Amino acid sequence: MSFIDQLKFNADGLIPAIIQDDQTGRVLMLGWMNRASVEMTLVRGQTVFWSRSRQKFWMKGETSGHTQTVKGISFDCDADALLIQVEQAGAACHEGYRSCFFRSVDAEGETCKITEPQLETPEQMYGKGKG
Amino acid sequence: MSFIDQLKFNADGLIPAIIQDDQTGRVLMLGWMNRASVEMTLVRGQTVFWSRSRQKFWMKGETSGHTQTVKGISFDCDADALLIQVEQAGAACHEGYRSCFFRSVDAEGETCKITEPQLETPEQMYGKGKG
Repeated sequence: MSFIDQLKFNADGLIPAIIQDDQTGRVLMLGWMNRASVEMTLVRGQTVFWSRSRQKFWMKGETSGHTQTVKGISFDCDADALLIQVEQAGAACHEGYRSCFFRSVDAEGETCKITEPQLETPEQMYGKGKG
Repeated sequence: MSFIDQLKFNADGLIPAIIQDDQTGRVLMLGWMNRASVEMTLVRGQTVFWSRSRQKFWMKGETSGHTQTVKGISFDCDADALLIQVEQAGAACHEGYRSCFFRSVDAEGETCKITEPQLETPEQMYGKGKG
């Protein structure tokens, strides 16, 4: 039985996928996948998400070239979340940062700071759009 | 302005929180928080989730002693996911594993294997229940 049959997708048919840098352990992003995009990810060996905002498949890096090559796939005890280790080309974030989690807050949650350099501007990455 | 005001909670008032071991970078679990549990997490300095299955607050480690002391909080570019680095006491997973992501699959998604030792049995951790 494929592990996909064990996964619990939510009411919208989606499961969250934590994307982690295989080399550094840095968490790069959280994306959403439906069953077909999990299957496509396995077949391609590169991540494919379901874009909730655009309601379409989102082949990561298709526009930007910032692909994610799959190095490992795990799922959690409740089978309702994925952890995918990847080799990330360039910036994972559509805002040009290595990680989407480039903003940290202090212990009180009041002050917010950017914790890493912006590698590219969105204009450099896409011209327009998000990929 | 508190960073909480910037967060985008979903239709159920929830946001996913990736919990990562501050020392090793290991992703331990994915939990869900509502606004009040994010606030409680900031105030306590330990994670508090919203249990979707039990529809109540879930003070991590309250029963098991396996608390998560907050070391860092980040949020992503879309402000709809949290990344929280913690100091994890014992097992994060209610099944007694350090990480909830203790099962990995091969490249075809067919074979599943357990990748880490079970530190305790659920019976040792709780007797019953989940915490």
